[in-house]
Amino acid sequence: MVCEIVCVGTEILLGDIVNTNAVYLSKKLAEMGISVLRQSVVGDNNSRLTEMLMQALERSDIVITTGGLGPTADDITRDKCCEVMQTELVLDEDIKNEIENYFSSKGLKMSESNIRQAYVPKDGVVLKNNNGTAPGFAIEKNSKCIIALPGPPREMKPMFEESAVEILKKYSTACFVSHNVKMIGIGESLMAENAADLLEGENPTVAPYAKDGECLLRITSSGETKEDAEKKALPVVDEVVNRFKEFVYAVDEENIETVLVKLLKKHGLKIALAESCTGGYAAKRITDISGASEVFDCGIVSYSNEIKNRVLGVRKEDLETYGAVSEEVARQMAEGVRTLGKADYGVGITGIAGPLSDATEKPVGLSFVAVSDEFSTECIKIMTGRKDRDYNRYVNGSRAFDAVRRKIIRRYEEQEEL
Amino acid sequence: MVCEIVCVGTEILLGDIVNTNAVYLSKKLAEMGISVLRQSVVGDNNSRLTEMLMQALERSDIVITTGGLGPTADDITRDKCCEVMQTELVLDEDIKNEIENYFSSKGLKMSESNIRQAYVPKDGVVLKNNNGTAPGFAIEKNSKCIIALPGPPREMKPMFEESAVEILKKYSTACFVSHNVKMIGIGESLMAENAADLLEGENPTVAPYAKDGECLLRITSSGETKEDAEKKALPVVDEVVNRFKEFVYAVDEENIETVLVKLLKKHGLKIALAESCTGGYAAKRITDISGASEVFDCGIVSYSNEIKNRVLGVRKEDLETYGAVSEEVARQMAEGVRTLGKADYGVGITGIAGPLSDATEKPVGLSFVAVSDEFSTECIKIMTGRKDRDYNRYVNGSRAFDAVRRKIIRRYEEQEEL
Repeated sequence: MVCEIVCVGTEILLGDIVNTNAVYLSKKLAEMGISVLRQSVVGDNNSRLTEMLMQALERSDIVITTGGLGPTADDITRDKCCEVMQTELVLDEDIKNEIENYFSSKGLKMSESNIRQAYVPKDGVVLKNNNGTAPGFAIEKNSKCIIALPGPPREMKPMFEESAVEILKKYSTACFVSHNVKMIGIGESLMAENAADLLEGENPTVAPYAKDGECLLRITSSGETKEDAEKKALPVVDEVVNRFKEFVYAVDEENIETVLVKLLKKHGLKIALAESCTGGYAAKRITDISGASEVFDCGIVSYSNEIKNRVLGVRKEDLETYGAVSEEVARQMAEGVRTLGKADYGVGITGIAGPLSDATEKPVGLSFVAVSDEFSTECIKIMTGRKDRDYNRYVNGSRAFDAVRRKIIRRYEEQEEL
Repeated sequence: MVCEIVCVGTEILLGDIVNTNAVYLSKKLAEMGISVLRQSVVGDNNSRLTEMLMQALERSDIVITTGGLGPTADDITRDKCCEVMQTELVLDEDIKNEIENYFSSKGLKMSESNIRQAYVPKDGVVLKNNNGTAPGFAIEKNSKCIIALPGPPREMKPMFEESAVEILKKYSTACFVSHNVKMIGIGESLMAENAADLLEGENPTVAPYAKDGECLLRITSSGETKEDAEKKALPVVDEVVNRFKEFVYAVDEENIETVLVKLLKKHGLKIALAESCTGGYAAKRITDISGASEVFDCGIVSYSNEIKNRVLGVRKEDLETYGAVSEEVARQMAEGVRTLGKADYGVGITGIAGPLSDATEKPVGLSFVAVSDEFSTECIKIMTGRKDRDYNRYVNGSRAFDAVRRKIIRRYEEQEEL
């Protein structure tokens, strides 16, 4: 079974918006074992959309469209899908009432054009939109299937999960599962080298990936059922986790900050952050997570030597002797903010994020990240060799969070195992 | 003249990467007055790519491809473009030498497969790759044009700017220029209402857009030359700027933080930030800008009442009486951090970012943003009505930066005009 994705919208062709719908759908379909042959984008144009849909249906079993389901005259996906599937639009009274209720609940008057959205294909199934007014639909006819989803991602994604997946299941030839074993502190090539035997496997396959400051091994298996596929994947996941030990910060978790906040919560611990080059980015990432206030009270962005000294207590003579970007200063920042914030763990981050170097001879991409608890302070030296400010600032935060994670695990979890 | 964009790469169809090349090229082509009819993505598959290119050339005058120019066997764009344009590949000795030098300069050995990249179309023009080894090319034949660019954006974009633009100029029917007048503190519908007469214009066109916490009017004009187009746009840009006065924070500048940092630099001023709900996000945005250390020394993330009191000096009784999310607390945060950081302007941000409410009865999306200088402190109350944590945190920062911008302008720039 093969599938094509057709995204409808002149605004995509004008480069006004990035087509994130295509990447989302491709990923989800790959997980279901449905091959995507093409992604296409076409404007809100009658003849071009008709031509596109006709050709797509000739080549593929399933066509998934996004966009063009709104109330205005240039929203033509509904009409064109019916045309190519040889069916017609009929008024759905329930949907009409729902749209009317949606507007009156917001104290707004429904315009005539909104009624357009209550027309649905006669031979189709309506897909409910729980996050907007435009319903989607599916038409299955003559061994072909069209599924039409709305354009806005926050309407499209839930509709896909809640309704389209159920329809697509019968086209799925196999079940696929993927697990990502995520690592910090090891490079992609070394990781791949140490996993060389696993990379040759066929079911599951194991593939290395790298992204900013971290890398991962993705284990993907297929089976007749999801359980069947899981059974094949899990021993390899375990093997990878055991082989890479302390480098592994998560299996499938979104990111290191999520992992760290969970770990701090689990042990009832608090963290305080002192940032120089990251300038609040580390605190931002911790507080991205709702409920971070349980584990985080105090962050200091000390972007000058004077603030490092006066607020965090870094010694003036060390700032002069070693410079702001030094192990000594990182350690004192970590210790200072731990005391000031009355936290269990203090973090100090200082570095040269770039793109330009500072007045010293230190290279862009050099950073020191220190982590302090009541017993000791440790410091990592990082040299990314890159002049990319965003990258350097992101990596510093990730390495700091990972260092705290390792320190907590050594103290609270490895002890327990003895 | 119409154009299609064909992106080649199985990894895009698998949803492993977002296709940012398509949005970049679409935007650039629109600016040149070249209409993009379709964007397509196809995998690294011989027959499918050939079919795609044949169909694209039938429909369109220009086809721009990205990807598939690498050294491995699944990089097939070179071969397929030659096939559909009825030409052949020939070895280019200069490129071969360049690739050899590239590898030896990095101390690496060139593999045999890299020689593939030195083959270029016999009837084509080579586009130099200054950021990688794979050259691009253009073939113009029988009133059709194919331009092949590499897949990695950091190679593709410079090659497009440096070489492809020159070739495409002759297909451009008109020159387009666009200017964005960006505003904070006014809603999109009110903005559109007040610009109703301008929205009816044809050259330039004026279109309203909204994005997180701000909105803009885009003025787009066309002319035979760029200067000609500019001449048509500028009076309308001036009219919009004059009409919306203090709401306008920039014309074409990237964002409010860039505008604020420039304004602070211009007047030799420093800002200090006290953040609760934004949790470092505002400081992160200021320090995203290289050179921010000229205007920013001190940021405090006070994520608990205790830190608000002990570090920033917010009165305990006010925290108890009014709660952390209140005008009183925002004002004291702004004043406290101004004093602590010895800055000209102090900012205090406190709110309920969501998605969940706190223990009080205050609604998610409620925030107070205060700005303090040596003479006065002002406070804005924000109610976004949204539960989206990212959105609320972003908007709070933008509104705070804009409030500082307005306060500086009132004090340092409007006085001068008297």
